[in-house]
Amino acid sequence: MNVELINTGSELMLGRVLNTHQQWLCRRLADLGYVVTRQVAVADAGPDIEQAVREALARADLVLTTGGLGPTSDDLTRDLIAQLLGKKLHEDAAIVQHIEQFFNSRKRPMPASTRVQAMVPEGAIVLANPNGTAPGLAMKVKDGAWKPENGTQVSSPSTLNPQPSTSSKWLIMLPGPPRELRPMFNDTVVPLLHRVLPLDHEYVCRTLRTVGIGESQVADKIGGPLREILALGLDLGYCAHIGAVDIRLAAQGPHATELVREAEALVRAQLSAHIFAEDDETLEAVIVRVLTERKQTLALAESCTGGGIANRLTNVPGASAVLLASLVTYANEAKQKFLGVSSATLTAYGAVSETVAREMAEGARRKTGADFALSVTGIAGPGGGSDAKPVGTVFIGLASPDETIVLKQFNPFDRETFKNVTGTQALEVLRRILLTLE
Amino acid sequence: MNVELINTGSELMLGRVLNTHQQWLCRRLADLGYVVTRQVAVADAGPDIEQAVREALARADLVLTTGGLGPTSDDLTRDLIAQLLGKKLHEDAAIVQHIEQFFNSRKRPMPASTRVQAMVPEGAIVLANPNGTAPGLAMKVKDGAWKPENGTQVSSPSTLNPQPSTSSKWLIMLPGPPRELRPMFNDTVVPLLHRVLPLDHEYVCRTLRTVGIGESQVADKIGGPLREILALGLDLGYCAHIGAVDIRLAAQGPHATELVREAEALVRAQLSAHIFAEDDETLEAVIVRVLTERKQTLALAESCTGGGIANRLTNVPGASAVLLASLVTYANEAKQKFLGVSSATLTAYGAVSETVAREMAEGARRKTGADFALSVTGIAGPGGGSDAKPVGTVFIGLASPDETIVLKQFNPFDRETFKNVTGTQALEVLRRILLTLE
Repeated sequence: MNVELINTGSELMLGRVLNTHQQWLCRRLADLGYVVTRQVAVADAGPDIEQAVREALARADLVLTTGGLGPTSDDLTRDLIAQLLGKKLHEDAAIVQHIEQFFNSRKRPMPASTRVQAMVPEGAIVLANPNGTAPGLAMKVKDGAWKPENGTQVSSPSTLNPQPSTSSKWLIMLPGPPRELRPMFNDTVVPLLHRVLPLDHEYVCRTLRTVGIGESQVADKIGGPLREILALGLDLGYCAHIGAVDIRLAAQGPHATELVREAEALVRAQLSAHIFAEDDETLEAVIVRVLTERKQTLALAESCTGGGIANRLTNVPGASAVLLASLVTYANEAKQKFLGVSSATLTAYGAVSETVAREMAEGARRKTGADFALSVTGIAGPGGGSDAKPVGTVFIGLASPDETIVLKQFNPFDRETFKNVTGTQALEVLRRILLTLE
Repeated sequence: MNVELINTGSELMLGRVLNTHQQWLCRRLADLGYVVTRQVAVADAGPDIEQAVREALARADLVLTTGGLGPTSDDLTRDLIAQLLGKKLHEDAAIVQHIEQFFNSRKRPMPASTRVQAMVPEGAIVLANPNGTAPGLAMKVKDGAWKPENGTQVSSPSTLNPQPSTSSKWLIMLPGPPRELRPMFNDTVVPLLHRVLPLDHEYVCRTLRTVGIGESQVADKIGGPLREILALGLDLGYCAHIGAVDIRLAAQGPHATELVREAEALVRAQLSAHIFAEDDETLEAVIVRVLTERKQTLALAESCTGGGIANRLTNVPGASAVLLASLVTYANEAKQKFLGVSSATLTAYGAVSETVAREMAEGARRKTGADFALSVTGIAGPGGGSDAKPVGTVFIGLASPDETIVLKQFNPFDRETFKNVTGTQALEVLRRILLTLE
């Protein structure tokens, strides 16, 4: 099945906003087995929208549009699509009533312009919008019901999706605001898809997340073992983040579950301890989860990461049960005062040294009473490097109940990447120790 | 001029990652006068990529692709485009050397698979990648140098852009990782565009960044004063972030510079102190710049922002001259131990209170010896709220040489947005005080 997504909005083309619809809808659709094969964004301009819809209808079994259903002059989608499909628009009394109630309940007069949102192309299914005024619209489209610009009927290029059990083509128009679109998708579009475009075959997708190993090393290690399953139809993909690589295993058809399960076992056998999580869990969420389960606590002593590790951990709901404090000690005086790093050590070895990393971790653990304390001290750059300690040099310390370990790393990246990679390495040191203490 | 952007990556179609390239490249290109007319994302699948490139070349003067240049089996873009354009690939010795050096400097063996990244289609310009192994590639494409699938030559729909002074078509392939793509775009693609696809007319774009005022208030204040200049061709746009609104002033043609300069003066007259920066400067960069100029220092005491403010400040190169420490005191004991907040205050008012915010700020200033100290204490949620102090409640303190002020805010957002908005409000409190002390 070919699924295409069209996002309209001039602000997208100017880069003024991030297209979050793309990720949200692609994710929801993929989870349901309707993997999007193409996503397009165009400005709020008639010819651009019309061309995008025309081309998508020529290729796809399901086309979803976002935006352009509102009351202002740049809301063109509804009219353009009715025109393209040769459908008359009529005013829907129930929608008019909904819009009136919407404004009444907010004690605001109903602007006359909003009435245009009640116009419905003949034959369209109205998708209720409890969170706004513009309803969504779903239309069954027969082949040839629209006129392709140059008579092109582009052949379907994708083999990612299962074939639909019906040859119906559907066009679904959704409103732009996320707080209207998301509940409408969940509450009305999902049941509609199951009814009008049911899947013939099972679809399974699994992501294994690795850390501490590069993308090409991952590929080298698992490419051979997976060769047979790939030949049987496994879809293998990599997504390299900074310091981490996601491995995506997907399959469709009657054997999808077994294929993905076997592939997962082979990948785990090759990469074992590098795999820190499945699907969407982050490394920081793993740390918060494991420490919460064990009722243990953590403190941080951050120099060069400047609060970046604390920031990641505190993005996880419930982090307060685990993280007691992070002492972001940028200045040497702060390292002495808040962590008890000795002045003699700082003078003898410099702030970026194994010994200081050790004293920082042990000091943070002692001063906060945490079970574990992580420390980082290094040179983020762009300034501050030397021949002996070039920009990118970093020491990571971990003080545990039993011992303190210090790891030296070299991360010669731009400043933000340096902070991210170093943070990931530090969290991974802790995760590995937690694994051995299981 | 028609500019199209093609983002490749199965992870995009599966919704595993957010497409940040779209916003970043659209923004950079628009600011340079090359407004993107269509953006497309497809999976890492040969036919999908080929079709997208073929269609884009049929319409556009400039096509940019992202991703698919790496060493793994799903990196297909380079080969597919060479094939589509009938160009042979040859190994570039300089790139091989760069890749070898890249691995040598990291003391890692060079995997054989990475060598494929040195393959260059004949006639392509190599765009150096100092931050990774895969170079970018730029190719001049003659009309008809590729075979459109059905002989379609789709007419150009957009009128947004100035016309190019040359009829050359360019195809530019960029690597997927943002930390490789962004510097490559700035350092090599921008000069290339100016050289090979110069604009006929001057194009000027200026962004003024405001904080502490809503989008509709901004529009109400400047809409009237700008009316005349808008009639003369000024392009005015807004981009609302949470807690901040960017105002974009653009114009093309022989009077572009004057139009934008006049518009800027009118906007500044209306919004004065709300404007914290121009173009891409961040609020945290302004703080670091001003404090550095004045040789003054800052300390932070963060509870609910969990290191988020320190993280933003330490993303700015040179932050170490300004930021002495951030005490991320999540636990009450840490607030007492590291900031000297009194146990009686915590018991009497609770951790989220004006008095605790005051003691945190004054404690951080006293213990670090900084000129200024910012504190934040609040309820990020999702748990921890009450009727008296619902999720989103936050107190922001600022201790200065002369006085301590505390501001109460209500930011009822999701956890990460809460941290971001609160951080912006705290930095803005400091910026306003620094303005009055000028």
